[in-house]
Amino acid sequence: MGGDYAPAEAVKGVKLFLSKASDAHLMLIGDEQALTPLLTEAALDQSRYTVVHSSQVIGMNEHPTKALKEKPHSSISIGFHLLQNKKIDAFISAGNTGAMMVGAIYSIKVIEGIQRPTISTILPREDGSTGLLLDVGINADCKPENLVQFAILGSLYSKYILGKDKPKVGLLNLGEEEGKGNLLAQATYPLLKENSLINFVGNVEGRDVFKNTADVIVCEGFTGNVVLKLAESFHDIAVRRNIKDEYLDRFDFEQYGGTPVLGVSEPVIIGHGISGERAFSNMIVLAEQMIQTKLLEKIRESFVVAPEA
Amino acid sequence: MGGDYAPAEAVKGVKLFLSKASDAHLMLIGDEQALTPLLTEAALDQSRYTVVHSSQVIGMNEHPTKALKEKPHSSISIGFHLLQNKKIDAFISAGNTGAMMVGAIYSIKVIEGIQRPTISTILPREDGSTGLLLDVGINADCKPENLVQFAILGSLYSKYILGKDKPKVGLLNLGEEEGKGNLLAQATYPLLKENSLINFVGNVEGRDVFKNTADVIVCEGFTGNVVLKLAESFHDIAVRRNIKDEYLDRFDFEQYGGTPVLGVSEPVIIGHGISGERAFSNMIVLAEQMIQTKLLEKIRESFVVAPEA
Repeated sequence: MGGDYAPAEAVKGVKLFLSKASDAHLMLIGDEQALTPLLTEAALDQSRYTVVHSSQVIGMNEHPTKALKEKPHSSISIGFHLLQNKKIDAFISAGNTGAMMVGAIYSIKVIEGIQRPTISTILPREDGSTGLLLDVGINADCKPENLVQFAILGSLYSKYILGKDKPKVGLLNLGEEEGKGNLLAQATYPLLKENSLINFVGNVEGRDVFKNTADVIVCEGFTGNVVLKLAESFHDIAVRRNIKDEYLDRFDFEQYGGTPVLGVSEPVIIGHGISGERAFSNMIVLAEQMIQTKLLEKIRESFVVAPEA
Repeated sequence: MGGDYAPAEAVKGVKLFLSKASDAHLMLIGDEQALTPLLTEAALDQSRYTVVHSSQVIGMNEHPTKALKEKPHSSISIGFHLLQNKKIDAFISAGNTGAMMVGAIYSIKVIEGIQRPTISTILPREDGSTGLLLDVGINADCKPENLVQFAILGSLYSKYILGKDKPKVGLLNLGEEEGKGNLLAQATYPLLKENSLINFVGNVEGRDVFKNTADVIVCEGFTGNVVLKLAESFHDIAVRRNIKDEYLDRFDFEQYGGTPVLGVSEPVIIGHGISGERAFSNMIVLAEQMIQTKLLEKIRESFVVAPEA
């Protein structure tokens, strides 16, 4: 029931996903009355999904903690309940982002050793490959140790989901040389340099974000959020100005579906409010990849051996 | 003698500038032996300029403070000496940025009441107008009071140089609502809101940078630098991909010439290392505007009445 075009686009996304080879069984959490006609119309294979009825909806502008507490029968509350009780292996929603974050952190819990879960964005690169930037907004103020953990989480995601062997990690900064930057970047650089779990390649500047200088770029969520929204606005400009370019098409961040909440103990994926068919389908694919690659086990293992900050 | 194509492009820029209506007299500081043949070849009106010989050059990678001390006969050292002694009304260079900053702050001095001088960038907007973003790199760590001063400086620059009446000031942030952001943005918002010298319109996000939501956008220099370089990289992408678009052409930040160091007591303009003819000419035009509009007097007046932080 989450997202601006729910549940119609979610059902279309399910249909698109089910048209591909997969043995995933989908649990569709939503208002049965709204869902049933859409599912019937979509003529989906009924053996591939189960509908779980939810009688409440958390609005996009509701206060996350309050809404989760007051609406136990919302699709988001039910989703986290199912995830917590191992009835599902991953939970996806394009609903209220705050409620998804609060649910992920407080009902699913953070993996031991991780100080702050993080969200990321895919970076389309000119050579056709994809980079990763994190954090992009939930950790506006960070300590150096947080950025180091983002680097580890991002490296694992880059390796297991994006298929990069030994992903190069860069620190977003205002200059290339060691010693450059604000106090946070200056303090983070040596910690990244000495960390044996990652392949640190040094500082990267704003001009390097869409190059393959680094596969994983870390920063606090304030700058990361500004970078993401600025990049999105370039796509909007290209669309408005009728610029046709294959590479700029890849700046349509909607297509990437959503971002996993990295650092929590089960796969949780948060979609854009305006997620459409393709975004929903891609989020299910991502969830499946996270399960199949055992990404969360790899994360747990890394944080067991990682020295605590 | 500053910049990657010095002094040839500087002389071409002078020629371009002199072809326009102006009664400015230019003092060209440089190695006479290098300059004379170029000036002769350019066939400039000799009554419009005076050559001031400089026998040393500060390289682009030299340590600023050390270089300024050890090379008193460099064009940068001589320029600041002339400015300090009121022999010139403005000083422009595309040389070593650090040396320009150190010279501006220590030989020309900061205007009383200003805590940190700042540098800005022009923001090309789709409607043909220009916005302003500051700081873009010399103040990587800021206090809320610094951002308030950047807002005042930017507003005066926007009004007197960019011709905006009551320029709208926005705070770069990761969300629109008051209360959003990192600790700095949260603490800055109320100070901007209550400041009577500016026309504060609230938070602006990364997606608003190239819109006319705000005419003056303030942030610390870390994020500002990343934004500027990211925007420059979009122009590079457009050029590499052979995308022809009038608006994207305006992302060629070279054409804007350079940035004034706002907050120091005389007009000082720092150009890009790769400044060419047009950039040099535009920097002279900007210097002339700063003198004619008495921008620095307006700044002094604002900071006399401004409550100290």
